[in-house]
Amino acid sequence: MPVASEVVYMAAEGHRWEYTSNEPARAFVPGHITGFFSVHSHDDPRVAGSRGAGIALTEGVTVELQRADETTVTLRGNEIEMDAVTRTLDSLSVEARVAIETQLPVSAGFGVSGGAALGTALAANTQFGLAHTENELVSTAHAAEVEAGTGLGDVVAQARGGVPIRLEPGVPPDNQLDGIPAPATRVEYVSFGGRPTDEIIGGDVETLSWAGERALAALCEEPTLPGFMECSRTFAREADLLTPQVKAALEAVEEAGGEAAMAMLGETVFALEHGLTDAGYEPAVCEIHPAGATLV
Amino acid sequence: MPVASEVVYMAAEGHRWEYTSNEPARAFVPGHITGFFSVHSHDDPRVAGSRGAGIALTEGVTVELQRADETTVTLRGNEIEMDAVTRTLDSLSVEARVAIETQLPVSAGFGVSGGAALGTALAANTQFGLAHTENELVSTAHAAEVEAGTGLGDVVAQARGGVPIRLEPGVPPDNQLDGIPAPATRVEYVSFGGRPTDEIIGGDVETLSWAGERALAALCEEPTLPGFMECSRTFAREADLLTPQVKAALEAVEEAGGEAAMAMLGETVFALEHGLTDAGYEPAVCEIHPAGATLV
Repeated sequence: MPVASEVVYMAAEGHRWEYTSNEPARAFVPGHITGFFSVHSHDDPRVAGSRGAGIALTEGVTVELQRADETTVTLRGNEIEMDAVTRTLDSLSVEARVAIETQLPVSAGFGVSGGAALGTALAANTQFGLAHTENELVSTAHAAEVEAGTGLGDVVAQARGGVPIRLEPGVPPDNQLDGIPAPATRVEYVSFGGRPTDEIIGGDVETLSWAGERALAALCEEPTLPGFMECSRTFAREADLLTPQVKAALEAVEEAGGEAAMAMLGETVFALEHGLTDAGYEPAVCEIHPAGATLV
Repeated sequence: MPVASEVVYMAAEGHRWEYTSNEPARAFVPGHITGFFSVHSHDDPRVAGSRGAGIALTEGVTVELQRADETTVTLRGNEIEMDAVTRTLDSLSVEARVAIETQLPVSAGFGVSGGAALGTALAANTQFGLAHTENELVSTAHAAEVEAGTGLGDVVAQARGGVPIRLEPGVPPDNQLDGIPAPATRVEYVSFGGRPTDEIIGGDVETLSWAGERALAALCEEPTLPGFMECSRTFAREADLLTPQVKAALEAVEEAGGEAAMAMLGETVFALEHGLTDAGYEPAVCEIHPAGATLV
């Protein structure tokens, strides 16, 4: 019986645009900043998730994947444990060497773990000739991320790109996505440190979810980029998530006439255009990314 | 009472990243080749549409839009009637000068009219500060295109990008989309002339839709790029749409070891990678476009 890569090769009648087992497969997944969200728990990780809204970023996660006898995961060359990635590979019943590269801070609200899971699913599908659709791969990565406890809504947003609104939690076709029309706007961010997502989304989320539902209702009334920033600021305040450093940065940007909000869940502030620069910070800079995750 | 652009400006508290009425708004919409489809008629143009699958192209339609006292539409600088565009503006209750630029052949199966409608919706939303979501703008453009009789499924596919599978007809959230994971593959095409879409989709479509449903079922069994090309070739044959020139080109590419299919609805052949070049044609060249329509 031929191995998976040979099956793909045969199915394609030998055309050169198919991968073979000697080449690694690569995927790029945009980073994703969540501005506000509500938690929707469920025993089935494909039903669980979050409602909310965020911004996909041109700065993201690149995953390079090669078949291997035993699964290993590296981040910037260093071997690590990344539960969302190993669970994705387990779901797809493959073992692989996964190398993750990103300029984004980890555990700081940029969707690095979700991006790593989704990139792994896309790259594994190609490398092993699994013939899954994009919705199936998104569902696999979302479930792995939820079970790992590292995120609830990044994966579906990162698969879409732009400025995604998550109207219903879970995976396609039951989740519902919309988006705020926006040009490729400059986004600045500063991160003062990480916050473990599982501590917050695994704890008492009643106040947070109430604030998240209010923010989503308000955004649907005014689905614009300024509307999104304002809903996000209100959410961070109402959900009582502001830290002193984040609060100071938000106030400084507002005083300088800019638009900023807090990235969920990290001790991170993001601003549109030159908001943080004008307020005297030295931020990292990227843009809104119009596309979702892609093979590269 | 302030005019629309002033309302936007005020809502944004004067930040410079908002458009003002002096700047035109611009949108880019990828071209879209449909490989196979089935027709789903309905009195409500938001329910009507098609099932099927296709490829979004890096070659596309750029729309530049500026408020005006009376609506005019130009294509490559020449004033034209484009019903899908004027119906889109009518639905949004605005009048504008719309300039459409594209390298793609018109009425040849590349989704130029759908792209022009969708680009108009996105650009008008920005120019007039209408604060619609992306789903709302897609729905408006889809309905305009269906009522104009120039297309049934291009708009929703062009809003998504990649290699879209249209599982259910109509607009979000009732339409269902999936996609075939594919890297940014080279796409070649030659067009031997146009075919008026309304003559075919307005006529007897029983055989065509039967073939389209068979092709979609087959693609869902093998959702890969080679699977898509094979389903598309089978569809064109079963739906009896092949013309002598298209048939000759498909055979020539196959003999040269490549993958080609016919673009619906045009007298157009497209091939992956160097398929048409290797068969001795001098095709236009682009790539699969990973993103959907965007403001630029």
